Amino acid sequence: MTQLASSFARLFPLPRRQFQFPRWNPAIGTRSFSPSPVTFRAAQVSKKKNTIMATVNTKTGQVIDRTVLESMLRRRLFYTPSFEIYGGVSGLYDYGPPGCALINNIVDLWRKHFVLEEDMLEVDCTMLTPHEILKTSGHVEKFADWMCKDPKTGEIFRADHLVEEVLEARLKGDKEARGQKVVVDEEKEAKRKKKAKETKAVRLDDAVVKEYEETLAQIDNYDGPELEQIITKYDIRNPTTDGNLLPPVAFNLMFQTSIGPSSNMPGYLRPETAQGQFLNFQKLLDFNQQSMPFASASIGKSFRNEISPRAGLLRVREFLMAEIEHYVDPEGGKKHSRFQEMKDIELSLLSRDVQLSGSTQTTKMTIGKAIESGLVDNETLGYFLARIQLFLLKLGVDPAKLRFRQHMANEMAHYAADCWDAELQTSYGWIECVGCADRSAYDLTVHKNKTGAPLVVREPRVEPLKIEEWQVDLDKKKFGPRFKKDGKAVAAAVEALSQEFREKLALDLEQQGKIEVDVEGVGSGRVELDKELIKIEKRTRIENVREYTPNVIEPSFGIGRILYSTLEHVYWSREGDEARGVLSFPPAIAPTKVLIVPLSNHASFRPLSHRLMMKMRRMGISNRVDDSSASIGKRYARNDELGTPFGITVDFQSVKDDTFTLRDRDSTKQVRASEDEILQALKSLVEGDETWEDIRKRLPEFTGQEVD
Amino acid sequence: MTQLASSFARLFPLPRRQFQFPRWNPAIGTRSFSPSPVTFRAAQVSKKKNTIMATVNTKTGQVIDRTVLESMLRRRLFYTPSFEIYGGVSGLYDYGPPGCALINNIVDLWRKHFVLEEDMLEVDCTMLTPHEILKTSGHVEKFADWMCKDPKTGEIFRADHLVEEVLEARLKGDKEARGQKVVVDEEKEAKRKKKAKETKAVRLDDAVVKEYEETLAQIDNYDGPELEQIITKYDIRNPTTDGNLLPPVAFNLMFQTSIGPSSNMPGYLRPETAQGQFLNFQKLLDFNQQSMPFASASIGKSFRNEISPRAGLLRVREFLMAEIEHYVDPEGGKKHSRFQEMKDIELSLLSRDVQLSGSTQTTKMTIGKAIESGLVDNETLGYFLARIQLFLLKLGVDPAKLRFRQHMANEMAHYAADCWDAELQTSYGWIECVGCADRSAYDLTVHKNKTGAPLVVREPRVEPLKIEEWQVDLDKKKFGPRFKKDGKAVAAAVEALSQEFREKLALDLEQQGKIEVDVEGVGSGRVELDKELIKIEKRTRIENVREYTPNVIEPSFGIGRILYSTLEHVYWSREGDEARGVLSFPPAIAPTKVLIVPLSNHASFRPLSHRLMMKMRRMGISNRVDDSSASIGKRYARNDELGTPFGITVDFQSVKDDTFTLRDRDSTKQVRASEDEILQALKSLVEGDETWEDIRKRLPEFTGQEVD
Repeated sequence: MTQLASSFARLFPLPRRQFQFPRWNPAIGTRSFSPSPVTFRAAQVSKKKNTIMATVNTKTGQVIDRTVLESMLRRRLFYTPSFEIYGGVSGLYDYGPPGCALINNIVDLWRKHFVLEEDMLEVDCTMLTPHEILKTSGHVEKFADWMCKDPKTGEIFRADHLVEEVLEARLKGDKEARGQKVVVDEEKEAKRKKKAKETKAVRLDDAVVKEYEETLAQIDNYDGPELEQIITKYDIRNPTTDGNLLPPVAFNLMFQTSIGPSSNMPGYLRPETAQGQFLNFQKLLDFNQQSMPFASASIGKSFRNEISPRAGLLRVREFLMAEIEHYVDPEGGKKHSRFQEMKDIELSLLSRDVQLSGSTQTTKMTIGKAIESGLVDNETLGYFLARIQLFLLKLGVDPAKLRFRQHMANEMAHYAADCWDAELQTSYGWIECVGCADRSAYDLTVHKNKTGAPLVVREPRVEPLKIEEWQVDLDKKKFGPRFKKDGKAVAAAVEALSQEFREKLALDLEQQGKIEVDVEGVGSGRVELDKELIKIEKRTRIENVREYTPNVIEPSFGIGRILYSTLEHVYWSREGDEARGVLSFPPAIAPTKVLIVPLSNHASFRPLSHRLMMKMRRMGISNRVDDSSASIGKRYARNDELGTPFGITVDFQSVKDDTFTLRDRDSTKQVRASEDEILQALKSLVEGDETWEDIRKRLPEFTGQEVD
Repeated sequence: MTQLASSFARLFPLPRRQFQFPRWNPAIGTRSFSPSPVTFRAAQVSKKKNTIMATVNTKTGQVIDRTVLESMLRRRLFYTPSFEIYGGVSGLYDYGPPGCALINNIVDLWRKHFVLEEDMLEVDCTMLTPHEILKTSGHVEKFADWMCKDPKTGEIFRADHLVEEVLEARLKGDKEARGQKVVVDEEKEAKRKKKAKETKAVRLDDAVVKEYEETLAQIDNYDGPELEQIITKYDIRNPTTDGNLLPPVAFNLMFQTSIGPSSNMPGYLRPETAQGQFLNFQKLLDFNQQSMPFASASIGKSFRNEISPRAGLLRVREFLMAEIEHYVDPEGGKKHSRFQEMKDIELSLLSRDVQLSGSTQTTKMTIGKAIESGLVDNETLGYFLARIQLFLLKLGVDPAKLRFRQHMANEMAHYAADCWDAELQTSYGWIECVGCADRSAYDLTVHKNKTGAPLVVREPRVEPLKIEEWQVDLDKKKFGPRFKKDGKAVAAAVEALSQEFREKLALDLEQQGKIEVDVEGVGSGRVELDKELIKIEKRTRIENVREYTPNVIEPSFGIGRILYSTLEHVYWSREGDEARGVLSFPPAIAPTKVLIVPLSNHASFRPLSHRLMMKMRRMGISNRVDDSSASIGKRYARNDELGTPFGITVDFQSVKDDTFTLRDRDSTKQVRASEDEILQALKSLVEGDETWEDIRKRLPEFTGQEVD
């Protein structure tokens, strides 16, 4: 694996930048590899989720069969491979009507929960990004994976994936030869079988098995040269042809293009939305009338040119992100004014220390306690962790399958103060869906240094600051004639002298009437200055304005991953004559809120269905009429799979007295009441003011029809 | 100009595909140039909008000063050049908080007005698109502009723009020499002055003036070789250096990239969202339970690599589109079931014939009449024109500045049945903001032919169709041994025989016992078949299923252009001590609906402001508190520029009795009432149930404070 992808983020597209620069040190320019116990243990944790298909249960206690679920999701057009009639392109998916509605609803909820609730400044920046910006941010140099090419077939492999695949196959062959039971990810196995030769049941030396296992446990931590060593040492080849491979080379994961008609403006599709927000910092601060703290936010597509995408919606080349950049004063402990509202919220935390001990045991703790104890770095970071949890729970995420995992020291960028991922448990393992990092002043600083733009906050000091310091005066009139063209260089060298050195020079000047200063490239490199030219004095300077670069707390959401994980969390199947899938979306995010089902094709039902539809549309409740000829049971079954939470049946009684039955998707219980009461109940359910239990208690139950 | 951009669409990024293939004939492969009177007159119409800065008035009768407006929009961060601290990139803009809210509100309204109102199937397809798809659609070959390079400086010019710029400068010099008044677009002039040499006041021959004017009038219609002739004939050079230029070459306007690690999958950023919808047609038809007609819809970014973008937000390289593909049965006159609801809506129509006569006079006509008279091709197309108008008016578009312009025959693709643009009048001229075309079966057909995917509708016939036809039977057993490897070719040649020819052959076979058939590449090219091998008989075939390729009616919206044009339509300035800009957005799209203004910083106001804010937030009414120390007048002035329609003032009276004043942005009139009444009024205003006039009549007027 490369210096760019963290131990825990290897299987999936990275919504978070710090995943990509876990140990990147711009001072050194490259990471120093150290297969420390830390790295080893962290990698072991990560291995657990990647190699086997995790056994995860639905809320109703059934084991999730991912193949069945994914087939249902495709059949119902939640998503579909892009360009399928042209053969498709891996890592690219289109969202069909229910998937698209789901995304829109998640984004809408996100905007309400974050942007509107906290008056964040939402921006929409371009995806096309010139080279220079991503050079400054570090992406041009560091946003890469290692790949190997087969010179004969032209096939390209992601180096770490290849090593993993081959060694796992050998270990499996060894187990077979030893007559042990082999647990495999069926999907992965099917793919492997399709292209590779049959696994050979070959028994390996015990020592080799141990070596392979250790290598696999550390697979996330290898860089290119190390992967090359492993490939050579274990004679790893193209699994299909057995051909030798070329050594791994770095492959930048940004899609490159050229802006404008000449080829002199190379650009990329952005790998994240954050850079556009940073570049507009000064304008946003102005818009916010110079008031701190504040946050910007952005929702939009980003891109990552995966070498060989797999894992469905979790690892794609084009994905929707929602990112917040919350700017905070680095002084004063990064307090948050609304932290009190969050402090008693309990989170499942998986700390760095626990991971170091080789465990994945989470601790339940209020965010208030986590900050008191120093586990979470500061209030603002903690505030957002709690807010992220509240958001995910609104979507229907199962709290038992949500944890916050702290980044290991070697996962974080050197400048980051602390970083936590909200991870959701799925059949692919624990998936990081939201990153929340304290990135310190890094991003604004690099762009400020590169462009000279004042990406800083300037605020009047309540108490002016008095600074005692050694100041230097140069006699400009004599300075010019004396040094001529070297004047500027000499003056700059003097200006650059430290306070300490100035104090020493002041004494020398006092005692000897002259001093010597190093000035590179002028004369012998040492210049003499006498009392006529220079004066050095200790004075008091009053600073009325404080200037600082804000720190950034960055919650960053991978919407596609959240969507997929939520689908797994709300999925279950109804036991009955036949197993039927149900998606128990909360009403707020359900693609369609209400299904209107006329009992039959009878003409008298049509005006009633139409009236209900129009009334709900005006109330902003999305609904669909299904007047197909299928049985009521079949029509409801279809909508169980689409996750429609409520159904209204129009029957002969409705024609007589304008009463309707209202059905709850999850319990299949029904109530019957007047049109007004039913619509009022729906409004209340959809807006979250009442639950189905509330409605069932106050409206009469209906048991007349058999709809299953 | 190229074969790709229509006469009327040259200055701006094209939301519509048919603009780009005005006369493209895939049968011929290239357009045949004919500077007919038609072309000439159409171009003259278009010239009017492009060459001079149009004088347009606000609703209040003031002349719009675009420089002032655009400066206000940038100051208030509606939009800003992207990457400005890195020097910026032309044609790329970021939307700041008010612009972003405006876009979100427009998109939200669009979704309600179109997608929800008609149960359209919204999809979200990838922007990355492999080469093959855009080759099939014709974009790879035809989506291009002509550009000239200066071999010395490396500068690149869009050929038609260059000719235009140079000839216009010469005509201006001529006018100056003749002592005539020169009307210029100030912005354009300023740009020209910045880079070019001063215009020379040189008098031209009358004949030359006429030639230049004619060339300019036709500038949209020239292809590369013609532009080359013009450049040579009039000795057009680099305006800055006077250097000679290379001949024009075609420049494809798609951004190219490479998908995956090997370079064997070239791809592009999509130039439109339509292709993704077409490719998913079959799945969407399934999702719609095979029911026709239906529509898909998509909202997303598209890209166009402009050679030299100008005209601000109207011509950009990355833009938001909203497109509908409405699939309709080509038989039965393309009726629309809800047309009755639209038939009395009156539109301003600029027909093809009127344009041919050299006029731009629009006719007001109900869409019902327009279809009856044959002016608009069919009901479905007409239905959407009316729906488009209703949508634009909801945004605050000035009805006096909206027209529907029919495409000229030479602007449309050969396959299009009819096409109308909704154009909005701005200081840049009449801008096409929505295209609405009947594209016939073209798109589905090309993808079906290329991939073999069944992009068709199959429906049971109510009455089975009886078809009398000549059928051919071949005796396969004897056929193989007889023709060996040529068997297939011979059989195919026989299958391909027309009904007419089969009838004739049946007679020959009957009379002579044998026939001869042309089969290219087999023997002498003519093959003999006798009665033993072939039988030709007239029989009746019963067809129970009808299979057809639906036609597509495609309303396509350029959201950025609609946004900019709407900004011009709702802009005016308040006369007073100082001229102040106001954006009179309708509440539905206003970025913020309510400004809460405490009279002063007094501590007793804070809880009231906070309570109002929280209550409105819960009601879904976006609002902001401005408790800065600026005067109330200044705070309202800022929000006039942001287009906030309502303001609530919190004063000492509020603290006493919980009454508040509510201010209307446009009239600056105020009413005073209890908190509940004020919030109820706001809900009613924002949801469009009442107007300010309604509120003013039923709540007591307040004149106590002077807020200007």
